[in-house]
Amino acid sequence: VLGLDPDPAALWPRADAGGALAPESDTPAQTAASAVLAHCRALIDATAHACVAVKPQLARFEALGAPGRAALGAVAEHARERGLLVIADGKRGDIDVTAAAYASALFGGIDTPFGHVDGLGADLVTVNPLMGRDALEPFVSAARAAGSGVLVLVRTSNPGAADFEDLELSGAGTVWERIAALVDELGGAGMGEAGLSDVGAVVGATEPRHLARARELMASATFLLPGVGAQGGRVEDLAPAFAPGRAGGLVTASRSIASAYKSSGGEPAAAARAEAERLREAAWELSDRFISAAS
Amino acid sequence: VLGLDPDPAALWPRADAGGALAPESDTPAQTAASAVLAHCRALIDATAHACVAVKPQLARFEALGAPGRAALGAVAEHARERGLLVIADGKRGDIDVTAAAYASALFGGIDTPFGHVDGLGADLVTVNPLMGRDALEPFVSAARAAGSGVLVLVRTSNPGAADFEDLELSGAGTVWERIAALVDELGGAGMGEAGLSDVGAVVGATEPRHLARARELMASATFLLPGVGAQGGRVEDLAPAFAPGRAGGLVTASRSIASAYKSSGGEPAAAARAEAERLREAAWELSDRFISAAS
Repeated sequence: VLGLDPDPAALWPRADAGGALAPESDTPAQTAASAVLAHCRALIDATAHACVAVKPQLARFEALGAPGRAALGAVAEHARERGLLVIADGKRGDIDVTAAAYASALFGGIDTPFGHVDGLGADLVTVNPLMGRDALEPFVSAARAAGSGVLVLVRTSNPGAADFEDLELSGAGTVWERIAALVDELGGAGMGEAGLSDVGAVVGATEPRHLARARELMASATFLLPGVGAQGGRVEDLAPAFAPGRAGGLVTASRSIASAYKSSGGEPAAAARAEAERLREAAWELSDRFISAAS
Repeated sequence: VLGLDPDPAALWPRADAGGALAPESDTPAQTAASAVLAHCRALIDATAHACVAVKPQLARFEALGAPGRAALGAVAEHARERGLLVIADGKRGDIDVTAAAYASALFGGIDTPFGHVDGLGADLVTVNPLMGRDALEPFVSAARAAGSGVLVLVRTSNPGAADFEDLELSGAGTVWERIAALVDELGGAGMGEAGLSDVGAVVGATEPRHLARARELMASATFLLPGVGAQGGRVEDLAPAFAPGRAGGLVTASRSIASAYKSSGGEPAAAARAEAERLREAAWELSDRFISAAS
């Protein structure tokens, strides 16, 4: 999965130049959004053959206001044209009508008295489960209606995951294991033909010891695996993610692909292509080995 | 606090008509966003004298795409012109560069190579602490730099709050009490002259038995108190929130104000004004009583 996390101050040189050539009448937000869009299109074009999806980090687009939202829509459209799924990484979490409004924004849109307003058309969205079952169910319902899915934060890849997610409960287990149990339950009604449910989990690649336990608790969940590359995780440690098959683990990388040229040298696009290809090969080789061993 | 949670299908009649008269060339999103903006302006004008802040629910604006983001900015501007603070209710939660990007979007914006891109200019934002300390610190830093503050979800007002927030830990206490301790710690470096810190807490008004405990754990935090009205909470139960003074408790209501005319009859604006005034009087009378009793 190609993570799209565009810092307007660190775009690929050519994309940057494209932005600077925009008409004088544009606001800084419009010019920056145009440059971000050009950067993301170039990244997608360079790496699409090695990826299954893009994962735009919504914060980066929101920082550019209304033009940022327009750029996000154009990025999603470009990814779809290249045959890629779109994973909207917004980590939303809220209840009833609010969750439904977020789901409308990210999936298929809403009917209003003024006509249908399109959503982003995402195939998967990341959601935050802190507020509990009623913060997840509206997303799951909306995803199911749209033929899409959700990825629930279960055990994230950052150091702060230890602060609350890892807390030991008085009965047994941890907070994240309790979240995992709810993910498994909610996914039960959304099983696909391949044996994967439409309720997946975000499980950080930086703590591989958690992966086997997570797979025990969520046998049918697709795992989104952040933290490879810039955050220190290694593809080689991710084997349990692939237990349900190759699609059980989505390895996502952002900075290590977009910034590959800084360490390897050469054109940004060529370096990104090589790094994306390297990660794809590593993930597939690992999943093939794991699946052979299991059968 | 006037909650702004505009459903495009349930706007005030006059605001709705205004939207329908928009030029034919507008997209449904633009027309809906214009109508939502007119509705929010009318709500603000009707109730500003009884409120200290508006709290736009970001999901509702995001569901209208780029025009929704533009409408959100105009709503915030209108609220500021009426002397109100702006509480951006997005419940964001993410780490390092992503959290910083969200903070830029909601507070003061970012400097880019293309010029400064304005943020929403919020005075307070709601944040989700699930991912831990490193998901909160970037928001706190950005808020402090902007002279603004954050409101951390501690114990929310929905039934699902029992699923994870209320879990008992193996040592002692609950998950939400552990979150409260971190809120108190982070706020220590941001105390204002009035004895309130710049790190506040969202504590639902639907479970008043938690409020006294929350106040013990977070003596200097401003409490945002959702759940009054449509969700069943009563202002009369909120006394502990006001222990640090009147500004220690922010009573927020959305649907009960905007939809007051449906039960009381009459003009939407007059009914909203009366309901907002009723809540303000109840909160102030209660806070006065509590502060007198404590002194």
